[in-house]
Amino acid sequence: MEHLNRRFFLKTSATGIAVSLLPTMSTEVAAADSSVPQVQTSGDPKDATKRLAQYVLKAKFEDLPTNVVKETKRALVNYMGVTVGSCKHEAVEIAIQSLSAVSASKQATILGRKERFDALNAAFINGVGSHVFDFDDTHLVTNVHPSGPIASALLAYSEIKPVSGKDFLNAFYLGVEIMIRFANSTAPNHADIGWHVSGSVGSIGAAAAVGKLMGLSEQQMLWALGLGASQLVGFRDSFGSMNKSFNPGRAASNGLFAALLAQKNFTSSNGVIEGRVGWAQTVTTKIDYQELLGDLGSRFEIAKDTYKPFACGIVIHPAIDAAIQLRNQYQLKAEQIQSIKIKGNPMMLELCGKKTPQTGLEGKFSVFHSVATAIINGQAGEKQYSDAAVRDAKTITLRDKVDVTSDSKIPKKSADMVITLNDGRVLNKFIEDAIGSVANPMTDQQLEAKFTDLTEGLLSSAKNKSLIEACWNVDKLPNVAKLAKLSVA
Amino acid sequence: MEHLNRRFFLKTSATGIAVSLLPTMSTEVAAADSSVPQVQTSGDPKDATKRLAQYVLKAKFEDLPTNVVKETKRALVNYMGVTVGSCKHEAVEIAIQSLSAVSASKQATILGRKERFDALNAAFINGVGSHVFDFDDTHLVTNVHPSGPIASALLAYSEIKPVSGKDFLNAFYLGVEIMIRFANSTAPNHADIGWHVSGSVGSIGAAAAVGKLMGLSEQQMLWALGLGASQLVGFRDSFGSMNKSFNPGRAASNGLFAALLAQKNFTSSNGVIEGRVGWAQTVTTKIDYQELLGDLGSRFEIAKDTYKPFACGIVIHPAIDAAIQLRNQYQLKAEQIQSIKIKGNPMMLELCGKKTPQTGLEGKFSVFHSVATAIINGQAGEKQYSDAAVRDAKTITLRDKVDVTSDSKIPKKSADMVITLNDGRVLNKFIEDAIGSVANPMTDQQLEAKFTDLTEGLLSSAKNKSLIEACWNVDKLPNVAKLAKLSVA
Repeated sequence: MEHLNRRFFLKTSATGIAVSLLPTMSTEVAAADSSVPQVQTSGDPKDATKRLAQYVLKAKFEDLPTNVVKETKRALVNYMGVTVGSCKHEAVEIAIQSLSAVSASKQATILGRKERFDALNAAFINGVGSHVFDFDDTHLVTNVHPSGPIASALLAYSEIKPVSGKDFLNAFYLGVEIMIRFANSTAPNHADIGWHVSGSVGSIGAAAAVGKLMGLSEQQMLWALGLGASQLVGFRDSFGSMNKSFNPGRAASNGLFAALLAQKNFTSSNGVIEGRVGWAQTVTTKIDYQELLGDLGSRFEIAKDTYKPFACGIVIHPAIDAAIQLRNQYQLKAEQIQSIKIKGNPMMLELCGKKTPQTGLEGKFSVFHSVATAIINGQAGEKQYSDAAVRDAKTITLRDKVDVTSDSKIPKKSADMVITLNDGRVLNKFIEDAIGSVANPMTDQQLEAKFTDLTEGLLSSAKNKSLIEACWNVDKLPNVAKLAKLSVA
Repeated sequence: MEHLNRRFFLKTSATGIAVSLLPTMSTEVAAADSSVPQVQTSGDPKDATKRLAQYVLKAKFEDLPTNVVKETKRALVNYMGVTVGSCKHEAVEIAIQSLSAVSASKQATILGRKERFDALNAAFINGVGSHVFDFDDTHLVTNVHPSGPIASALLAYSEIKPVSGKDFLNAFYLGVEIMIRFANSTAPNHADIGWHVSGSVGSIGAAAAVGKLMGLSEQQMLWALGLGASQLVGFRDSFGSMNKSFNPGRAASNGLFAALLAQKNFTSSNGVIEGRVGWAQTVTTKIDYQELLGDLGSRFEIAKDTYKPFACGIVIHPAIDAAIQLRNQYQLKAEQIQSIKIKGNPMMLELCGKKTPQTGLEGKFSVFHSVATAIINGQAGEKQYSDAAVRDAKTITLRDKVDVTSDSKIPKKSADMVITLNDGRVLNKFIEDAIGSVANPMTDQQLEAKFTDLTEGLLSSAKNKSLIEACWNVDKLPNVAKLAKLSVA
């Protein structure tokens, strides 16, 4: 079979990149591979998929450093808060209505809701919810949002088969780590081409994570990675529509789907990542295998996962941080303020310069509204970006007093704010690293406050508390299915 | 919202191709679009997605030319035969086992089987079955296999909501036509990059076809196309594994999934094909919009769909055709034959030169086995490619008498055969266009014989006959759900 397999492009070359012109058995286009770009490779592509599979199979919860366990829990707290918080969002409602026509199984929870679905569609719907506020975790190098696809697939699977909290947390770490590494190793090209990275690398990450819980053999894990990688989701073209949150949602169900098939020996290639016409060749023009696979188990990209404190464009975050700090320090009221002057990186106005936003969504891209509402309310969560909040008269009065100038010497993570009060006082705050960055992460308490703010009106205070507690203590749960059930009011 | 939308890349430019450097609101990579290739466009990309949606919405069964209706029925006969015929294939068995863990609904038929599944998973499983023998329809310009994703999605949907035979046939035509046009307009680049075209353009074709049956509004159809296009499936790396048939299967369920969501107003972009970071930019390096959208409703690519008479690599087909014609003309027996000499295009040996195949799969890529079994059995269907058939002593004796020489003057569609008999006679046959090509299509009777050969042992003779009849007369069915049910023994 070896001769034949080579003709089928199974493990066609040791380097994995397309240089030879092996004949094709394909009934689909006998491709010349002449006129299209070939992926530029750095690092060692040899057996890349196999090395990834082997790491996934051997990775143990007990071997994770304390800070990695902690960060994985923080990612879980953030995921659970935003997903439960979004459970009545229109996109989630529509997904539930649409898929009830085809789903009869009640095996898995829709976080925060009474409806139950089969695991595949539950993974999708929860994945949509995780991203629809654009308030999920972010790995700042590539801005990939890894938790949605991974946690949504794992929680759904945990309602089919019993999964311990430790195993869940380990698989969650693995999936997130893999997604971040795929994003890092192909940045910026993979995204520049057009892919929405949180969707496009989600299926393979989720397949690996669920496959880990299933206890797949190495061969089955290779197939799970192959089937997972074969399902790409999402273009950047989708931004601004529900299709954006569709992408990580579909990645979650795709990954679970791939693992379910591989578990029963549905075959794939053995080297989907590095194959001559495999993942890297097809979906990116650059890949760094050292970035993808180097130091697995000792370099932890998940440790750099971050959480947004504010439900708006990330370039406004330093300005909001300054506003809230001054407000709290001086117990400011809107009526006291004569003017608010901000110096920020040019991207602040470029991306979020909407002077007179009319809707909540527009407000998320208005530094003017954001700073005004932050002064008045002391926060800039989902509630501060409702249509009503954006049209609030008091907020509009204050936002008209906000003035922003661009200064290319100020980095995107920073902002300088001067507030002049009616009594003549001049207050100043310079933010070096905005809250929520790697250098200045949200505290656990701030994460909890974000969670509680998002779930207010959806969960009772007691339910909210016990769900947060369960997330922090997930490694002590004998059966993680409890987690999803706790989210339901 | 217009200003904001532009920043979101919704309908960013009139031309639809990336020339400007608009800022991004994205929380995902603010891409520079500098170092990656931009899609080369010919024809007019303006409103491409909208023009496609409008054609789909207005296309009527009554407007289809007779030959198009006939070819669509022939595609259906071929699809039904190969899919029912494969219903006990290992890949289908595994898919059924795997997905029974998550599917509780019994709404849709697995063709040829007693098990029933929800429509999404039924579409997937039937799509796998349609391709697993590599015996499905082929549009020879790109070798895309369009019927599998489209018919699998439509049949599954027809068991959720009543669909008339005329509407089914019209939607089937539309989906196939769209898939072929996507393949043609991006060939060879899209496949050369690495995509398995039957998977990669299947989701959007199936979304359009199902959306047509749903009676979507123009806005909903744009969203269905957006959500469908956002789900790419399959690399050529998968060839030689079950992942190859996974690809059209997943395309079928993806398309249905997209349409179900769009029907309830789950939004997407309005211009997924031509968008600055949409489908064309992301998944191909060349697109010809005239090929994609020109003469819709008057140029019918489906009329060039073809069907394989033999269950093996297409480059062997002219040699088998010659062998069967000589066999029938002279009532040849293996024992009479001294030698078989074939002159063929170099690709014949290059792709199918396996001298001593050991398995049925290897036999499919052996001109030697194929010609020998064709002489002995008068055909080269699935049965002639079982492991046992390849190991048959009489066949091995004859295959050792086959000699092939390459002649680059002979085109791939042709072959020259000289058979020398033990009694000294020399028989010659030159095949200009192999049976099954556009120039020399299989007759309806040959299609029926292929169907019957595939379903033998699975369907009773009476069931077989009534299923074939129902396919030819599908436009007379008041409710096409009957078709799938007729396939079950």
